[in-house]
Amino acid sequence: MRKSVKIRVPGTSANCGPGFDCLGVSCTIYNDLELTLLKEPTLEIQAEGEGADSIPTDERNLAWRSIQLLLHRVKADEEYRGAIIRMKNGVPLSRGLGSSAAAIVGALKAANVLLGNPFDRRGLLQIATEIEGHPDNVAPAIYGGFTVSLVHEGVPESFAFLPKLPLKLVIAVPDFHLSTKAARNALPEAVPMKDAVFNVGRAALLVAALAKGNVPFLRHAFDDALHQPYRAKLIPGMYDVFEAARNAGALGVAMSGAGPCIVAYTTNHAATVGDAMVEAFRRHDVSARALALDVDKRGAHIAKE
Amino acid sequence: MRKSVKIRVPGTSANCGPGFDCLGVSCTIYNDLELTLLKEPTLEIQAEGEGADSIPTDERNLAWRSIQLLLHRVKADEEYRGAIIRMKNGVPLSRGLGSSAAAIVGALKAANVLLGNPFDRRGLLQIATEIEGHPDNVAPAIYGGFTVSLVHEGVPESFAFLPKLPLKLVIAVPDFHLSTKAARNALPEAVPMKDAVFNVGRAALLVAALAKGNVPFLRHAFDDALHQPYRAKLIPGMYDVFEAARNAGALGVAMSGAGPCIVAYTTNHAATVGDAMVEAFRRHDVSARALALDVDKRGAHIAKE
Repeated sequence: MRKSVKIRVPGTSANCGPGFDCLGVSCTIYNDLELTLLKEPTLEIQAEGEGADSIPTDERNLAWRSIQLLLHRVKADEEYRGAIIRMKNGVPLSRGLGSSAAAIVGALKAANVLLGNPFDRRGLLQIATEIEGHPDNVAPAIYGGFTVSLVHEGVPESFAFLPKLPLKLVIAVPDFHLSTKAARNALPEAVPMKDAVFNVGRAALLVAALAKGNVPFLRHAFDDALHQPYRAKLIPGMYDVFEAARNAGALGVAMSGAGPCIVAYTTNHAATVGDAMVEAFRRHDVSARALALDVDKRGAHIAKE
Repeated sequence: MRKSVKIRVPGTSANCGPGFDCLGVSCTIYNDLELTLLKEPTLEIQAEGEGADSIPTDERNLAWRSIQLLLHRVKADEEYRGAIIRMKNGVPLSRGLGSSAAAIVGALKAANVLLGNPFDRRGLLQIATEIEGHPDNVAPAIYGGFTVSLVHEGVPESFAFLPKLPLKLVIAVPDFHLSTKAARNALPEAVPMKDAVFNVGRAALLVAALAKGNVPFLRHAFDDALHQPYRAKLIPGMYDVFEAARNAGALGVAMSGAGPCIVAYTTNHAATVGDAMVEAFRRHDVSARALALDVDKRGAHIAKE
């Protein structure tokens, strides 16, 4: 009998302001991935939901390539040469909400479960980081909550924790894509020492205030000097959207990953903040919608039918 | 009747590795400062203990200048024109253990108490930061524990928290002074982006692991790329002392402030780590002694007789 499993995996927002290339948070928007491993070399991939039309359903498919790597690592790639993959995607594609990380993590977790869990979450983090290139989104997708990640001698380490306050993530999703490569190319090789110090202090303050549950200190904790100033030109009206969110009551605002999504952090006012961000984008002729999400607490997990 | 008060204030270690110019920690080594405010313009200053010979006992005295500023702020400088100040100092001078911050904070706190506490701790932080130039040491001296500090539009903000693990600070105190100015001049104006990212990740990880009480993650959390590499030349054998401490069981090692003290963090092995650091300094012809301290939990407080 063929066995299958369905995995639910959250969308994620990397950087979180000052935590450039290290912080990430998972949010309550999900992709479901159902996997059946096949002994015969046939591949059947179905995608519905966000970006379904632009997801390859052949050998290039990211979920399938992730599954193949995991099978190879446990020497099961001779036994399982095909798969049926059914995806229902709630995470918008190429917007800075970790859609590729969700695909990778959902696929790896599904294959891992079907093979009897040869890898723990740290093992999955290692493989997922190899595929994605960095742990910033795959870590929160695996663990849930906020994650602080770094790579030490090729090995990713991620510390996951839940914020001790009721944080809402209000995400403005503009109606255009942004390539991570373009966003990466916008960055300089060197930065002023004072900007480095600026971010070190804010990132440390952000983590301390989240971990200990202190709302007032969050007000200065989401600011960034290391990457957003260089990437702002790629997102029309970015700083106006920031200002609109703050004026509507957000504690802080940041690019989500490399954008173009913008995420506002608030403990209330979610609807007002969302409306204000969408309206600010509209004034720059950018069509956008707003999502009011919570912090996902579980990370990737087996979805019950 | 003349009133006096005795304040006990801890020594502090700034930067804590990756937290350059933002992190600080107070430790169980203390200065006692006893203050009597006088209506007459006479000044009597006595110092004993660490560095007593090199502490000015006239108008240039840092504690007295701090007291004068506080008196001025509450318009009491006409009423109180003199003081008797008695200091018993346990914090070594000009070694990177916050001796000037201890003098400032002890003096401000004493004057504040004698005047009926016109300032809360945040108010004292503001004045102390103006005198010291930065909040890195005065914040932990005031609050105790670890502090994350930043200055936003001229106003210092410090978030204080206690580590959720039994951390020991083993401090190697070499027998030479280092001027903060020389250490500051060794730093470049710009740094590689990757070094900035390195510290952002480590500082965030350090704070998360301390706040949540996770020992294993501390192993990579004390590393720094922003200031220590440039200042290493000012401390003979610094990296050998680092290595000796790690080999003896330390979780991490860092310069204390701008040096020359070196602080190793450990949950046990304190004696072994201290011996190893002193021995490594000795191999570079530097005479040093080791202090095994805990994290001070109270900050500056009124000392009972």
